[in-house]
Amino acid sequence: MKYAVLATWKMAEEGTKKAARMLAEGKSSAEAIVEGIAMVEDNPDFHSVGYGGRPNAEGRVFFDGGFMNGDTLHFGAIGSLEGFRSAIRIAASLQDSDANNFLVGEGAERYAAAHGFERRDNVTPEAKQLYEQEKERLKELSAYDGHDTVCFLALDQNGTLCAATSTSGLFMKQPGRVGDTPLPGVGYYADSETGAAAATGMGEEIMKGALSYAAVRFLKDGLSAQEAAEKAVSELNDTLIRRNGYANPMSLIVLSRDGTYGIGTNITFTYCYASDREAAAVHEIVVERK
Amino acid sequence: MKYAVLATWKMAEEGTKKAARMLAEGKSSAEAIVEGIAMVEDNPDFHSVGYGGRPNAEGRVFFDGGFMNGDTLHFGAIGSLEGFRSAIRIAASLQDSDANNFLVGEGAERYAAAHGFERRDNVTPEAKQLYEQEKERLKELSAYDGHDTVCFLALDQNGTLCAATSTSGLFMKQPGRVGDTPLPGVGYYADSETGAAAATGMGEEIMKGALSYAAVRFLKDGLSAQEAAEKAVSELNDTLIRRNGYANPMSLIVLSRDGTYGIGTNITFTYCYASDREAAAVHEIVVERK
Repeated sequence: MKYAVLATWKMAEEGTKKAARMLAEGKSSAEAIVEGIAMVEDNPDFHSVGYGGRPNAEGRVFFDGGFMNGDTLHFGAIGSLEGFRSAIRIAASLQDSDANNFLVGEGAERYAAAHGFERRDNVTPEAKQLYEQEKERLKELSAYDGHDTVCFLALDQNGTLCAATSTSGLFMKQPGRVGDTPLPGVGYYADSETGAAAATGMGEEIMKGALSYAAVRFLKDGLSAQEAAEKAVSELNDTLIRRNGYANPMSLIVLSRDGTYGIGTNITFTYCYASDREAAAVHEIVVERK
Repeated sequence: MKYAVLATWKMAEEGTKKAARMLAEGKSSAEAIVEGIAMVEDNPDFHSVGYGGRPNAEGRVFFDGGFMNGDTLHFGAIGSLEGFRSAIRIAASLQDSDANNFLVGEGAERYAAAHGFERRDNVTPEAKQLYEQEKERLKELSAYDGHDTVCFLALDQNGTLCAATSTSGLFMKQPGRVGDTPLPGVGYYADSETGAAAATGMGEEIMKGALSYAAVRFLKDGLSAQEAAEKAVSELNDTLIRRNGYANPMSLIVLSRDGTYGIGTNITFTYCYASDREAAAVHEIVVERK
Protein backbone atom coordinates (compact mmCIF):
# COMPACT_ATOMS: atom_id res chain seq x y z
CA MET A 1 0.00 0.00 0.00
CA LYS A 2 1.13 3.58 -0.64
CA TYR A 3 -0.80 4.84 2.37
CA ALA A 4 -3.31 3.56 4.90
CA VAL A 5 -5.22 4.74 7.95
CA LEU A 6 -6.89 2.65 10.66
CA ALA A 7 -9.01 4.00 13.53
CA THR A 8 -11.10 2.76 16.46
CA TRP A 9 -14.91 2.91 16.54
CA LYS A 10 -17.53 4.11 14.11
CA MET A 11 -17.15 7.63 15.52
CA ALA A 12 -13.86 7.85 13.58
CA GLU A 13 -15.57 7.55 10.17
CA GLU A 14 -15.45 11.20 9.10
CA GLY A 15 -11.98 11.63 10.57
CA THR A 16 -10.78 8.57 8.67
CA LYS A 17 -12.08 10.00 5.41
CA LYS A 18 -10.32 13.28 6.08
CA ALA A 19 -7.07 11.54 7.05
CA ALA A 20 -7.21 9.37 3.92
CA ARG A 21 -7.66 12.46 1.72
CA MET A 22 -4.68 14.10 3.37
CA LEU A 23 -2.53 10.99 2.92
CA ALA A 24 -3.56 10.79 -0.74
CA GLU A 25 -2.41 14.39 -1.18
CA GLY A 26 0.99 13.43 0.23
CA LYS A 27 0.54 14.87 3.72
CA SER A 28 2.39 13.19 6.58
CA SER A 29 0.83 10.50 8.76
CA ALA A 30 1.40 12.80 11.76
CA GLU A 31 -0.71 15.60 10.24
CA ALA A 32 -3.38 13.21 8.98
CA ILE A 33 -4.06 11.47 12.29
CA VAL A 34 -4.00 14.64 14.36
CA GLU A 35 -6.63 16.15 12.04
CA GLY A 36 -8.63 12.92 12.10
CA ILE A 37 -8.72 12.82 15.88
CA ALA A 38 -9.41 16.54 16.19
CA MET A 39 -12.62 16.01 14.17
CA VAL A 40 -13.79 13.41 16.71
CA GLU A 41 -12.80 15.66 19.61
CA ASP A 42 -14.91 18.51 18.27
CA ASN A 43 -18.09 16.46 17.83
CA PRO A 44 -20.35 16.59 20.92
CA ASP A 45 -22.24 13.48 19.73
CA PHE A 46 -19.27 11.30 20.68
CA HIS A 47 -19.36 10.90 24.43
CA SER A 48 -16.01 9.40 25.24
CA VAL A 49 -13.74 11.92 23.53
CA GLY A 50 -13.33 15.68 23.54
CA TYR A 51 -16.27 18.10 23.68
CA GLY A 52 -19.21 16.31 25.28
CA GLY A 53 -16.96 13.65 26.83
CA ARG A 54 -18.24 11.85 29.89
CA PRO A 55 -17.62 13.59 33.22
CA ASN A 56 -15.62 12.24 36.14
CA ALA A 57 -17.00 11.54 39.63
CA GLU A 58 -17.21 15.29 40.28
CA GLY A 59 -18.93 16.21 37.03
CA ARG A 60 -15.77 17.58 35.39
CA VAL A 61 -14.28 16.48 32.06
CA PHE A 62 -10.57 15.61 31.91
CA PHE A 63 -8.64 14.39 28.87
CA ASP A 64 -5.85 11.89 28.25
CA GLY A 65 -4.04 11.72 24.90
CA GLY A 66 -0.85 10.54 23.26
CA PHE A 67 1.10 10.71 20.01
CA MET A 68 4.08 8.72 18.72
CA ASN A 69 6.26 9.13 15.64
CA GLY A 70 7.46 5.78 14.33
CA ASP A 71 10.60 7.17 12.67
CA THR A 72 12.20 8.61 15.81
CA LEU A 73 10.11 6.85 18.49
CA HIS A 74 9.54 10.32 19.90
CA PHE A 75 6.23 10.78 21.69
CA GLY A 76 4.14 13.42 23.38
CA ALA A 77 1.37 12.85 25.91
CA ILE A 78 -0.96 14.62 28.32
CA GLY A 79 -2.95 13.17 31.20
CA SER A 80 -5.78 14.49 33.37
CA LEU A 81 -5.99 17.78 31.44
CA GLU A 82 -9.04 20.03 31.86
CA GLY A 83 -10.35 23.01 29.99
CA PHE A 84 -8.74 22.82 26.54
CA ARG A 85 -10.21 22.11 23.14
CA SER A 86 -7.90 19.42 21.77
CA ALA A 87 -5.99 16.82 23.77
CA ILE A 88 -4.30 15.45 20.66
CA ARG A 89 -2.92 18.78 19.44
CA ILE A 90 -1.36 19.45 22.82
CA ALA A 91 0.01 15.91 23.15
CA ALA A 92 1.45 15.92 19.61
CA SER A 93 3.20 19.24 20.23
CA LEU A 94 5.19 17.63 23.06
CA GLN A 95 6.91 15.14 20.75
CA ASP A 96 9.59 17.69 19.96
CA SER A 97 10.77 18.07 23.56
CA ASP A 98 13.97 16.25 24.47
CA ALA A 99 12.46 15.62 27.92
CA ASN A 100 9.19 16.43 29.70
CA ASN A 101 7.24 14.69 26.94
CA PHE A 102 4.44 13.50 29.23
CA LEU A 103 2.72 16.23 31.26
CA VAL A 104 -0.24 15.81 33.60
CA GLY A 105 -2.73 17.88 35.56
CA GLU A 106 -2.04 21.50 36.35
CA GLY A 107 1.42 21.33 34.77
CA ALA A 108 -0.09 20.16 31.49
CA GLU A 109 -2.67 22.96 31.66
CA ARG A 110 0.02 25.57 32.24
CA TYR A 111 2.02 24.20 29.30
CA ALA A 112 -1.06 24.34 27.05
CA ALA A 113 -1.89 27.88 28.12
CA ALA A 114 1.69 29.07 27.66
CA HIS A 115 1.77 27.63 24.15
CA GLY A 116 -1.47 29.27 23.09
CA PHE A 117 -3.69 26.21 22.77
CA GLU A 118 -7.39 27.01 22.61
CA ARG A 119 -9.33 26.73 25.85
CA ARG A 120 -12.80 25.20 25.98
CA ASP A 121 -15.27 24.13 28.65
CA ASN A 122 -15.91 20.56 27.52
CA VAL A 123 -18.91 19.89 29.76
CA THR A 124 -21.95 19.99 27.48
CA PRO A 125 -25.48 20.43 28.88
CA GLU A 126 -26.16 16.81 27.91
CA ALA A 127 -23.09 15.57 29.81
CA LYS A 128 -24.09 17.62 32.83
CA GLN A 129 -27.57 16.10 32.76
CA LEU A 130 -26.18 12.56 32.46
CA TYR A 131 -23.90 13.22 35.38
CA GLU A 132 -26.73 14.54 37.55
CA GLN A 133 -28.84 11.49 36.70
CA GLU A 134 -26.13 8.97 37.37
CA LYS A 135 -24.24 10.38 40.31
CA GLU A 136 -26.72 8.90 42.77
CA ARG A 137 -26.03 5.48 41.31
CA LEU A 138 -22.27 6.08 41.40
CA LYS A 139 -21.55 3.37 43.91
CA GLU A 140 -23.54 0.80 41.98
CA LEU A 141 -21.68 1.39 38.73
CA SER A 142 -19.50 -1.57 37.95
CA ALA A 143 -19.46 -1.68 34.19
CA TYR A 144 -17.52 1.57 33.84
CA ASP A 145 -19.39 2.49 30.77
CA GLY A 146 -17.90 4.92 28.29
CA HIS A 147 -14.29 3.91 27.86
CA ASP A 148 -14.13 4.30 24.11
CA THR A 149 -10.84 5.90 23.18
CA VAL A 150 -10.40 7.20 19.67
CA CYS A 151 -7.12 5.90 18.21
CA PHE A 152 -5.69 6.60 14.77
CA LEU A 153 -2.77 4.83 13.08
CA ALA A 154 -1.46 5.87 9.68
CA LEU A 155 1.18 5.02 7.12
CA ASP A 156 2.10 7.86 4.77
CA GLN A 157 3.67 7.89 1.32
CA ASN A 158 7.12 8.39 2.85
CA GLY A 159 6.73 5.16 4.83
CA THR A 160 6.33 6.87 8.20
CA LEU A 161 3.96 5.28 10.69
CA CYS A 162 2.41 7.34 13.48
CA ALA A 163 -0.07 6.61 16.28
CA ALA A 164 -2.41 8.97 18.15
CA THR A 165 -5.04 8.62 20.88
CA SER A 166 -7.56 10.82 22.71
CA THR A 167 -10.20 10.18 25.38
CA SER A 168 -12.15 11.66 28.24
CA GLY A 169 -11.54 8.39 30.07
CA LEU A 170 -13.85 6.33 32.24
CA PHE A 171 -17.23 7.81 33.03
CA MET A 172 -17.29 8.68 36.75
CA LYS A 173 -13.53 8.20 37.06
CA GLN A 174 -11.84 9.50 40.19
CA PRO A 175 -10.07 12.90 40.08
CA GLY A 176 -6.54 12.47 38.73
CA ARG A 177 -7.20 9.06 37.18
CA VAL A 178 -5.07 8.37 34.10
CA GLY A 179 -5.70 5.34 31.89
CA ASP A 180 -3.69 3.61 29.17
CA THR A 181 -4.44 6.25 26.52
CA PRO A 182 -1.46 8.59 27.12
CA LEU A 183 1.08 5.84 27.93
CA PRO A 184 3.52 5.01 25.11
CA GLY A 185 3.84 1.24 24.66
CA VAL A 186 0.57 0.69 26.49
CA GLY A 187 -2.17 2.74 24.80
CA TYR A 188 -0.24 3.23 21.55
CA TYR A 189 3.08 2.48 19.88
CA ALA A 190 4.61 3.16 16.47
CA ASP A 191 7.80 1.97 14.81
CA SER A 192 8.08 2.76 11.08
CA GLU A 193 10.34 -0.28 10.54
CA THR A 194 7.72 -2.67 11.92
CA GLY A 195 4.23 -1.37 12.58
CA ALA A 196 1.93 0.56 14.88
CA ALA A 197 -0.78 -0.36 17.36
CA ALA A 198 -3.29 1.34 19.66
CA ALA A 199 -5.80 0.18 22.24
CA THR A 200 -9.27 1.01 23.52
CA GLY A 201 -11.30 -0.50 26.34
CA MET A 202 -10.81 -0.68 30.09
CA GLY A 203 -7.51 1.14 30.55
CA GLU A 204 -6.55 -0.59 33.78
CA GLU A 205 -6.80 -3.95 31.99
CA ILE A 206 -4.78 -2.84 28.96
CA MET A 207 -2.10 -1.52 31.35
CA LYS A 208 -1.60 -5.03 32.74
CA GLY A 209 -0.03 -6.17 29.46
CA ALA A 210 1.55 -3.24 27.57
CA LEU A 211 -0.86 -4.23 24.83
CA SER A 212 0.29 -1.92 22.02
CA TYR A 213 3.98 -2.70 22.45
CA ALA A 214 3.18 -6.42 22.68
CA ALA A 215 1.46 -6.36 19.28
CA VAL A 216 4.32 -4.48 17.59
CA ARG A 217 6.76 -6.96 19.14
CA PHE A 218 4.77 -9.82 17.56
CA LEU A 219 4.97 -8.05 14.18
CA LYS A 220 8.73 -7.87 14.68
CA ASP A 221 8.75 -11.62 15.38
CA GLY A 222 7.23 -12.13 11.93
CA LEU A 223 3.50 -12.38 12.61
CA SER A 224 0.99 -10.70 10.28
CA ALA A 225 -0.96 -7.69 11.57
CA GLN A 226 -4.03 -9.86 12.15
CA GLU A 227 -2.04 -12.57 13.94
CA ALA A 228 -0.24 -9.99 16.09
CA ALA A 229 -3.46 -8.22 17.10
CA GLU A 230 -5.24 -11.46 17.94
CA LYS A 231 -2.31 -12.91 19.84
CA ALA A 232 -1.78 -9.77 21.95
CA VAL A 233 -5.43 -9.56 23.01
CA SER A 234 -6.09 -13.28 23.45
CA GLU A 235 -2.92 -13.83 25.46
CA LEU A 236 -3.72 -11.00 27.91
CA ASN A 237 -7.44 -11.85 27.99
CA ASP A 238 -6.74 -15.53 28.74
CA THR A 239 -4.10 -14.73 31.35
CA LEU A 240 -6.45 -12.38 33.20
CA ILE A 241 -9.32 -14.89 33.13
CA ARG A 242 -7.01 -17.63 34.41
CA ARG A 243 -5.54 -15.45 37.17
CA ASN A 244 -8.50 -13.31 38.21
CA GLY A 245 -11.58 -15.06 36.85
CA TYR A 246 -12.50 -12.33 34.36
CA ALA A 247 -11.13 -9.91 31.77
CA ASN A 248 -12.59 -6.49 31.07
CA PRO A 249 -13.17 -5.19 27.53
CA MET A 250 -10.17 -4.46 25.34
CA SER A 251 -9.74 -3.93 21.62
CA LEU A 252 -6.56 -3.40 19.64
CA ILE A 253 -5.86 -2.06 16.15
CA VAL A 254 -2.60 -2.93 14.39
CA LEU A 255 -1.21 -1.46 11.17
CA SER A 256 1.89 -3.02 9.64
CA ARG A 257 4.52 -1.12 7.66
CA ASP A 258 3.08 -2.52 4.42
CA GLY A 259 -0.34 -0.99 5.17
CA THR A 260 -2.15 -4.23 6.02
CA TYR A 261 -4.07 -4.25 9.28
CA GLY A 262 -5.35 -6.51 12.02
CA ILE A 263 -7.87 -6.30 14.87
CA GLY A 264 -7.89 -8.06 18.23
CA THR A 265 -10.89 -7.68 20.54
CA ASN A 266 -12.75 -9.48 23.29
CA ILE A 267 -15.97 -7.48 22.69
CA THR A 268 -18.02 -6.43 19.68
CA PHE A 269 -16.02 -3.66 18.09
CA THR A 270 -16.27 -1.22 15.18
CA TYR A 271 -13.34 0.30 13.32
CA CYS A 272 -12.56 2.35 10.20
CA TYR A 273 -9.97 1.67 7.53
CA ALA A 274 -8.90 3.32 4.29
CA SER A 275 -5.95 3.00 1.93
CA ASP A 276 -4.98 3.90 -1.61
CA ARG A 277 -6.66 0.62 -2.62
CA GLU A 278 -9.73 0.74 -0.40
CA ALA A 279 -12.24 3.53 0.23
CA ALA A 280 -12.88 4.54 3.83
CA ALA A 281 -15.46 2.27 5.46
CA VAL A 282 -16.73 1.23 8.87
CA HIS A 283 -16.36 -2.46 9.74
CA GLU A 284 -17.71 -4.46 12.65
CA ILE A 285 -16.45 -7.52 14.49
CA VAL A 286 -19.09 -9.25 16.59
CA VAL A 287 -17.89 -11.04 19.71
CA GLU A 288 -20.23 -12.74 22.13
CA ARG A 289 -19.06 -12.32 25.70
CA LYS A 290 -19.24 -15.47 27.76
CA MET B 1 16.14 -20.10 44.96
CA LYS B 2 13.57 -19.95 47.75
CA TYR B 3 13.58 -16.16 47.69
CA ALA B 4 15.50 -13.31 46.06
CA VAL B 5 15.54 -9.52 45.91
CA LEU B 6 17.15 -7.27 43.29
CA ALA B 7 17.31 -3.47 43.43
CA THR B 8 18.75 -0.52 41.49
CA TRP B 9 21.71 1.54 42.68
CA LYS B 10 23.94 1.38 45.74
CA MET B 11 21.41 3.53 47.63
CA ALA B 12 19.23 0.38 47.88
CA GLU B 13 21.80 -1.52 49.98
CA GLU B 14 20.16 -1.15 53.40
CA GLY B 15 16.69 -1.63 51.93
CA THR B 16 17.85 -4.79 50.17
CA LYS B 17 19.16 -6.20 53.47
CA LYS B 18 15.86 -5.43 55.15
CA ALA B 19 13.82 -6.93 52.29
CA ALA B 20 15.98 -10.08 52.31
CA ARG B 21 15.44 -10.51 56.07
CA MET B 22 11.69 -10.16 55.59
CA LEU B 23 11.66 -12.68 52.74
CA ALA B 24 13.71 -15.12 54.89
CA GLU B 25 11.08 -14.79 57.60
CA GLY B 26 8.38 -15.75 55.08
CA LYS B 27 6.99 -12.27 54.46
CA SER B 28 5.49 -11.53 51.02
CA SER B 29 7.48 -9.98 48.19
CA ALA B 30 4.95 -7.11 48.22
CA GLU B 31 5.67 -6.25 51.85
CA ALA B 32 9.43 -6.71 51.46
CA ILE B 33 9.88 -4.37 48.51
CA VAL B 34 7.58 -1.67 49.86
CA GLU B 35 9.63 -1.61 53.09
CA GLY B 36 12.88 -1.68 51.10
CA ILE B 37 11.86 1.30 49.00
CA ALA B 38 10.43 3.20 51.98
CA MET B 39 13.90 3.08 53.59
CA VAL B 40 15.41 4.76 50.53
CA GLU B 41 12.59 7.31 50.42
CA ASP B 42 13.25 8.32 54.03
CA ASN B 43 16.99 8.88 53.61
CA PRO B 44 17.81 12.52 52.69
CA ASP B 45 21.28 11.48 51.47
CA PHE B 46 19.72 9.95 48.35
CA HIS B 47 18.89 12.82 46.03
CA SER B 48 16.71 11.20 43.42
CA VAL B 49 14.10 9.56 45.65
CA GLY B 50 11.84 10.67 48.49
CA TYR B 51 12.93 13.12 51.17
CA GLY B 52 15.75 15.26 49.79
CA GLY B 53 14.83 14.41 46.18
CA ARG B 54 15.87 16.84 43.48
CA PRO B 55 13.49 19.75 42.86
CA ASN B 56 11.70 20.57 39.64
CA ALA B 57 12.12 23.76 37.60
CA GLU B 58 10.19 25.69 40.26
CA GLY B 59 12.07 24.32 43.26
CA ARG B 60 9.31 21.90 44.29
CA VAL B 61 9.65 18.14 44.78
CA PHE B 62 7.16 15.81 43.07
CA PHE B 63 7.14 12.03 43.17
CA ASP B 64 6.34 9.23 40.73
CA GLY B 65 5.98 5.62 41.87
CA GLY B 66 4.51 2.29 40.88
CA PHE B 67 3.81 -1.20 42.20
CA MET B 68 2.80 -4.44 40.44
CA ASN B 69 1.74 -7.82 41.78
CA GLY B 70 2.88 -10.64 39.50
CA ASP B 71 0.14 -13.06 40.55
CA THR B 72 -2.82 -10.89 39.50
CA LEU B 73 -1.03 -8.33 37.28
CA HIS B 74 -2.77 -5.73 39.42
CA PHE B 75 -0.87 -2.48 39.80
CA GLY B 76 -1.04 0.84 41.60
CA ALA B 77 0.72 4.04 40.59
CA ILE B 78 0.98 7.74 41.36
CA GLY B 79 2.48 10.52 39.25
CA SER B 80 3.42 14.13 39.97
CA LEU B 81 2.51 13.85 43.66
CA GLU B 82 3.68 16.54 46.11
CA GLY B 83 3.78 16.77 49.86
CA PHE B 84 3.60 13.18 51.10
CA ARG B 85 6.17 11.01 52.83
CA SER B 86 6.08 7.82 50.75
CA ALA B 87 5.27 7.51 47.05
CA ILE B 88 5.53 3.72 47.16
CA ARG B 89 3.09 3.21 50.03
CA ILE B 90 0.48 5.31 48.26
CA ALA B 91 1.09 3.62 44.89
CA ALA B 92 0.98 0.11 46.39
CA SER B 93 -2.33 0.86 48.14
CA LEU B 94 -3.94 1.51 44.74
CA GLN B 95 -3.36 -2.07 43.52
CA ASP B 96 -6.60 -3.16 45.18
CA SER B 97 -8.81 -0.80 43.16
CA ASP B 98 -10.75 -2.34 40.28
CA ALA B 99 -10.24 0.92 38.37
CA ASN B 100 -8.56 4.28 39.02
CA ASN B 101 -5.25 2.50 39.73
CA PHE B 102 -3.07 5.32 38.38
CA LEU B 103 -3.67 8.73 39.93
CA VAL B 104 -1.78 11.94 39.23
CA GLY B 105 -1.41 15.46 40.54
CA GLU B 106 -4.04 17.01 42.75
CA GLY B 107 -6.28 13.94 42.44
CA ALA B 108 -3.49 11.71 43.75
CA GLU B 109 -2.90 14.14 46.62
CA ARG B 110 -6.56 14.15 47.56
CA TYR B 111 -6.60 10.33 47.48
CA ALA B 112 -3.52 10.17 49.72
CA ALA B 113 -4.97 12.68 52.18
CA ALA B 114 -8.35 10.90 52.29
CA HIS B 115 -6.61 7.59 53.04
CA GLY B 116 -4.53 9.00 55.86
CA PHE B 117 -1.07 8.82 54.29
CA GLU B 118 1.55 10.86 56.11
CA ARG B 119 2.30 14.29 54.72
CA ARG B 120 5.83 15.64 54.48
CA ASP B 121 7.57 18.63 52.94
CA ASN B 122 10.25 16.82 50.93
CA VAL B 123 12.33 19.88 50.06
CA THR B 124 15.43 19.68 52.29
CA PRO B 125 17.64 22.74 52.93
CA GLU B 126 20.31 21.06 50.80
CA ALA B 127 17.89 20.55 47.88
CA LYS B 128 16.76 24.18 48.16
CA GLN B 129 20.37 25.35 48.04
CA LEU B 130 21.15 23.17 45.01
CA TYR B 131 18.08 24.53 43.26
CA GLU B 132 19.04 28.15 43.97
CA GLN B 133 22.56 27.51 42.64
CA GLU B 134 21.45 25.76 39.49
CA LYS B 135 18.32 27.60 38.45
CA GLU B 136 20.33 30.26 36.67
CA ARG B 137 21.94 27.56 34.56
CA LEU B 138 18.58 25.92 33.85
CA LYS B 139 18.62 26.58 30.15
CA GLU B 140 22.13 25.20 29.77
CA LEU B 141 21.32 21.89 31.46
CA SER B 142 21.33 19.13 28.93
CA ALA B 143 22.47 16.12 30.90
CA TYR B 144 19.34 16.00 33.06
CA ASP B 145 21.29 14.85 36.01
CA GLY B 146 19.58 13.00 38.83
CA HIS B 147 17.34 10.45 37.17
CA ASP B 148 18.15 7.56 39.46
CA THR B 149 14.94 5.72 40.26
CA VAL B 150 14.97 3.17 43.05
CA CYS B 151 13.43 -0.08 41.83
CA PHE B 152 12.94 -3.28 43.82
CA LEU B 153 11.99 -6.71 42.47
CA ALA B 154 11.42 -9.69 44.74
CA LEU B 155 10.48 -13.37 44.68
CA ASP B 156 8.99 -14.68 47.91
CA GLN B 157 8.72 -18.18 49.32
CA ASN B 158 5.24 -18.57 47.86
CA GLY B 159 6.61 -17.94 44.36
CA THR B 160 5.05 -14.48 44.02
CA LEU B 161 7.05 -11.88 42.10
CA CYS B 162 6.41 -8.17 42.69
CA ALA B 163 7.94 -4.96 41.33
CA ALA B 164 8.06 -1.48 42.87
CA THR B 165 9.55 1.89 41.90
CA SER B 166 9.93 5.39 43.38
CA THR B 167 11.59 8.60 42.22
CA SER B 168 11.54 12.37 42.42
CA GLY B 169 12.18 12.35 38.68
CA LEU B 170 14.44 14.52 36.57
CA PHE B 171 16.17 17.39 38.30
CA MET B 172 14.67 20.63 36.98
CA LYS B 173 11.79 18.78 35.32
CA GLN B 174 8.82 20.83 34.16
CA PRO B 175 5.70 21.05 36.35
CA GLY B 176 3.47 18.03 35.72
CA ARG B 177 6.22 15.95 34.06
CA VAL B 178 5.76 12.21 34.55
CA GLY B 179 8.48 9.74 33.56
CA ASP B 180 8.57 5.98 33.07
CA THR B 181 8.60 5.19 36.79
CA PRO B 182 4.81 4.95 37.44
CA LEU B 183 3.94 3.35 34.08
CA PRO B 184 3.24 -0.41 34.21
CA GLY B 185 5.04 -2.25 31.40
CA VAL B 186 7.42 0.68 30.96
CA GLY B 187 9.09 1.47 34.30
CA TYR B 188 8.24 -1.91 35.88
CA TYR B 189 6.45 -5.18 35.20
CA ALA B 190 5.89 -8.41 37.12
CA ASP B 191 4.41 -11.76 36.14
CA SER B 192 4.89 -14.55 38.69
CA GLU B 193 4.78 -17.19 35.94
CA THR B 194 7.70 -15.58 34.09
CA GLY B 195 9.66 -12.84 35.80
CA ALA B 196 9.84 -9.20 36.75
CA ALA B 197 11.76 -6.17 35.47
CA ALA B 198 12.22 -2.50 36.31
CA ALA B 199 14.08 0.41 34.76
CA THR B 200 16.07 3.47 35.75
CA GLY B 201 17.64 6.21 33.63
CA MET B 202 16.22 8.83 31.31
CA GLY B 203 12.49 8.15 31.52
CA GLU B 204 11.63 9.59 28.12
CA GLU B 205 14.09 7.15 26.52
CA ILE B 206 12.79 4.11 28.44
CA MET B 207 9.25 5.09 27.39
CA LYS B 208 10.24 4.71 23.72
CA GLY B 209 10.52 0.94 24.13
CA ALA B 210 8.30 -0.34 26.99
CA LEU B 211 11.57 -1.60 28.42
CA SER B 212 10.29 -3.60 31.40
CA TYR B 213 7.59 -5.42 29.46
CA ALA B 214 10.08 -6.12 26.66
CA ALA B 215 12.44 -7.90 29.05
CA VAL B 216 9.68 -10.03 30.59
CA ARG B 217 8.51 -10.92 27.08
CA PHE B 218 12.05 -12.14 26.28
CA LEU B 219 12.00 -14.29 29.44
CA LYS B 220 8.72 -15.75 28.21
CA ASP B 221 10.40 -16.52 24.88
CA GLY B 222 12.94 -18.63 26.78
CA LEU B 223 15.86 -16.27 27.33
CA SER B 224 17.72 -16.23 30.65
CA ALA B 225 17.37 -13.18 32.90
CA GLN B 226 20.77 -11.91 31.80
CA GLU B 227 20.03 -12.46 28.11
CA ALA B 228 16.61 -10.79 28.45
CA ALA B 229 18.00 -7.74 30.24
CA GLU B 230 20.86 -7.30 27.77
CA LYS B 231 18.66 -7.80 24.73
CA ALA B 232 15.98 -5.32 25.90
CA VAL B 233 18.52 -2.55 26.58
CA SER B 234 20.81 -3.17 23.61
CA GLU B 235 17.93 -3.39 21.14
CA LEU B 236 16.40 -0.07 22.27
CA ASN B 237 19.81 1.60 22.67
CA ASP B 238 20.91 0.55 19.18
CA THR B 239 17.59 1.52 17.60
CA LEU B 240 17.75 5.00 19.16
CA ILE B 241 21.36 5.53 18.07
CA ARG B 242 20.52 4.41 14.54
CA ARG B 243 17.39 6.59 14.32
CA ASN B 244 18.39 9.67 16.32
CA GLY B 245 22.17 9.57 16.60
CA TYR B 246 22.25 9.03 20.37
CA ALA B 247 20.67 7.14 23.25
CA ASN B 248 20.31 8.52 26.76
CA PRO B 249 21.17 6.47 29.87
CA MET B 250 19.04 3.46 30.74
CA SER B 251 19.53 0.51 33.04
CA LEU B 252 17.29 -2.48 33.58
CA ILE B 253 17.08 -5.12 36.30
CA VAL B 254 15.42 -8.47 35.61
CA LEU B 255 14.51 -11.20 38.10
CA SER B 256 13.26 -14.54 36.78
CA ARG B 257 10.76 -16.76 38.56
CA ASP B 258 13.61 -19.06 39.64
CA GLY B 259 15.37 -16.19 41.45
CA THR B 260 18.23 -15.74 38.99
CA TYR B 261 18.80 -12.21 37.77
CA GLY B 262 20.16 -10.17 34.91
CA ILE B 263 21.26 -6.58 34.26
CA GLY B 264 21.16 -4.54 31.07
CA THR B 265 22.70 -1.07 31.01
CA ASN B 266 24.30 1.44 28.66
CA ILE B 267 26.05 3.30 31.52
CA THR B 268 28.08 2.34 34.59
CA PHE B 269 25.51 1.04 37.03
CA THR B 270 25.34 -0.28 40.59
CA TYR B 271 22.75 -2.70 41.93
CA CYS B 272 22.00 -4.85 45.00
CA TYR B 273 21.07 -8.51 45.13
CA ALA B 274 20.32 -11.01 47.87
CA SER B 275 18.80 -14.49 48.02
CA ASP B 276 18.61 -17.47 50.35
CA ARG B 277 21.94 -18.56 48.84
CA GLU B 278 23.70 -15.20 48.62
CA ALA B 279 24.12 -12.45 51.24
CA ALA B 280 23.05 -8.94 50.25
CA ALA B 281 25.81 -7.12 48.35
CA VAL B 282 26.34 -4.15 46.07
CA HIS B 283 27.66 -4.93 42.59
CA GLU B 284 28.91 -2.64 39.85
CA ILE B 285 28.90 -2.91 36.08
CA VAL B 286 31.29 -0.51 34.36
CA VAL B 287 30.29 0.70 30.91
CA GLU B 288 32.33 3.20 28.95
CA ARG B 289 30.08 5.56 27.01
CA LYS B 290 31.21 6.19 23.47
